[in-house]
Amino acid sequence: MSTPDSPPPSAGAASDAPGSDEDRAARVALTWLVEPGHRLVWSLVQSYGAPATLELLLRGDSPDAALQTAVLAKRDRIDPRRFAETTLHRAERLGARIVVPSDDEWPARVESLATLELGVPGRINIDVRPPLCLWTRGALPLGETLDRSVAVVGARAATGYGIHVTGDLAHGLAENGWAVVSGGAFGIDSAAHRAALGAGGRTVAVLACGVDRPYPAGNTAMFEQIADVGLLISEWPPGSEPLRHRFLVRNRVIAAATAGTVVVEAAARSGAAQTMSRVLALGRAAMVVPGPVTSAMSVGCHELLREHPDAILVTSVPHVLEAVGRIGEYLTPPARGPEHRRDSLDEESVLVLEALPARGTIPTEELAARAGLTVRTVLRRLSLLELAGLVVRRDGEIALSRGSGAAP
Amino acid sequence: MSTPDSPPPSAGAASDAPGSDEDRAARVALTWLVEPGHRLVWSLVQSYGAPATLELLLRGDSPDAALQTAVLAKRDRIDPRRFAETTLHRAERLGARIVVPSDDEWPARVESLATLELGVPGRINIDVRPPLCLWTRGALPLGETLDRSVAVVGARAATGYGIHVTGDLAHGLAENGWAVVSGGAFGIDSAAHRAALGAGGRTVAVLACGVDRPYPAGNTAMFEQIADVGLLISEWPPGSEPLRHRFLVRNRVIAAATAGTVVVEAAARSGAAQTMSRVLALGRAAMVVPGPVTSAMSVGCHELLREHPDAILVTSVPHVLEAVGRIGEYLTPPARGPEHRRDSLDEESVLVLEALPARGTIPTEELAARAGLTVRTVLRRLSLLELAGLVVRRDGEIALSRGSGAAP
Repeated sequence: MSTPDSPPPSAGAASDAPGSDEDRAARVALTWLVEPGHRLVWSLVQSYGAPATLELLLRGDSPDAALQTAVLAKRDRIDPRRFAETTLHRAERLGARIVVPSDDEWPARVESLATLELGVPGRINIDVRPPLCLWTRGALPLGETLDRSVAVVGARAATGYGIHVTGDLAHGLAENGWAVVSGGAFGIDSAAHRAALGAGGRTVAVLACGVDRPYPAGNTAMFEQIADVGLLISEWPPGSEPLRHRFLVRNRVIAAATAGTVVVEAAARSGAAQTMSRVLALGRAAMVVPGPVTSAMSVGCHELLREHPDAILVTSVPHVLEAVGRIGEYLTPPARGPEHRRDSLDEESVLVLEALPARGTIPTEELAARAGLTVRTVLRRLSLLELAGLVVRRDGEIALSRGSGAAP
Repeated sequence: MSTPDSPPPSAGAASDAPGSDEDRAARVALTWLVEPGHRLVWSLVQSYGAPATLELLLRGDSPDAALQTAVLAKRDRIDPRRFAETTLHRAERLGARIVVPSDDEWPARVESLATLELGVPGRINIDVRPPLCLWTRGALPLGETLDRSVAVVGARAATGYGIHVTGDLAHGLAENGWAVVSGGAFGIDSAAHRAALGAGGRTVAVLACGVDRPYPAGNTAMFEQIADVGLLISEWPPGSEPLRHRFLVRNRVIAAATAGTVVVEAAARSGAAQTMSRVLALGRAAMVVPGPVTSAMSVGCHELLREHPDAILVTSVPHVLEAVGRIGEYLTPPARGPEHRRDSLDEESVLVLEALPARGTIPTEELAARAGLTVRTVLRRLSLLELAGLVVRRDGEIALSRGSGAAP
């Protein structure tokens, strides 16, 4: 169940080794027993492996009594090992595969969640440890795709402006060979996925429910297209419901798996602030698109830019590429207005040019006085301006040449 | 020629002392002979006083030969002392007065230009020394008005969006007792002046020409209104033309005389970048209003925010007041969405609430498993949620209370 064209990495491994069928099944069972990201469960898996951790929890030997109570309550209703077995069979029928950390296509970046600490003073940190496994629908190699990916996310209640800008950004990123990652929601998320699809590029929807029943149902046709040419991924096993708290848990994967996150529109006090804090804590590029200050859907974006000095204001694809590209890979030229010959002049030459009368000639001394420069400086500049064809000398005085466009 | 209601500060002073008629006349003559801001002329005035500096230049003893040539050329055409005398008389008839540094109403902030260095590598710095005098039309006390002032500036070719946002900002600043300073130009500048006038507040137009012939003429009615209830000020004597390079020279006064500058709209490669560099070099608040990334008139604003880490993104009057107000005078509350009871909850309580089914009850252990929390944590949170009226216990299980609005 690795990439479709390579042999299963479990072949020949010990029956409970990482990547073995038993390891995969144990990760499925663990993710079902305890919501993903759980600090203690992830640590136990790191130390003892998934099969031993599952065994320990089901035996009732958890070092955390409360975790134990929750696990045993769930175990008593459905057998976790049987659940895993059934789900893996079901997934195979659906064309979904499970990817685990020992697989070649595991997205290495998500492991940076292993050390993420989000200190909120006075509050217990929410668990944000790496996923134990990722369910995947689609033909693209997961790790390689996410390796060169940017998240484009934002408000469900997006405006026409937000949809337009999202389309431009996602189209351009896809054209430049970057996968566009988002959450599959209405509004900005859908606009990002659709623009990447429209550009014939790669897109990845990271879901907070099973890959067999992507939420929201209104986007079903888009999800089917993504499953065809992109990737649908989720930590939760097929059949899982999109419970609201799962979106927060899911968001950590979007932040960690991508080279950077662009927030296009966000209302005041939206989840965007939490997303950006995580992106910055992970050392990823935290990018924000500004908008009209009169738009409620840009208030959250402007607050992000005001409150996070490390957040980067982006307005175009080159800005995003500059932020996520390898050093020197992309350079944004500064924004340019219409090009004039005068634009390349030094300040003194501009002063000289602007002190010249629109019509007629002027003596050098008067020109110097009007320009607020010394005669010596003016004479030096005049030689160059004459060479450039911007001024002419007539009867020992100076005049603008035609077409130098120097009206005040 | 100080404020209309106080005696002339020159009364009883030595005939060439600072503030004397001779000092005033010399400053007028010097500003006419050499464009304002000139480094050497300003230094000479600081060392020897204005009358002695004028004497020295007219005698031909300038330490800078080129400056000397320019001054003598101008002197030979019109007698500078006679020019000053005529101009002072003419100004009196126009209702304009001249304010000099020794006057009580001199705006102290502009003196910070004395030490401003704008190093542009490879180029000679343009002169940005303080004004020698300021011509003033209007009844407000100059220094006191500028002491509590904010500049609101931007593109002439402003959009409806820019005009609207400028109006909001300037109106609010004026209502809060701040003078709105701008350059009198079409577009953003006019919108700023007009909104301050409309709010019954104070506004100051800093001109690059004589206060008797404010430019552009299309704004004449507005300028007359400003002269009535606000202030028109200029370094250049009445009768001076708005030569293009004078706008750059004038801009340093807007930057220096105010507590901060807000740029509302600016095209790519506009003068806004230079303005902002000066504002920042002077230690003033450099504020920028973002806009649609699809608007050419916001490109310059976004570039400022990208290139100047110390520039402050502002979207509203409270943001501006926070940046320019004395410490603790203004505090901006964070942007708020609609208020819900749930908004004040900690993250764990939110997880508990969101894991509860929309209808019916659920056992505590299952709730803990769905929420990804320990049973102990869930029990602790439930007590508080029950007290808050958000959940109820029924038959030993937990349910959402009506009206807690917890649908996923």
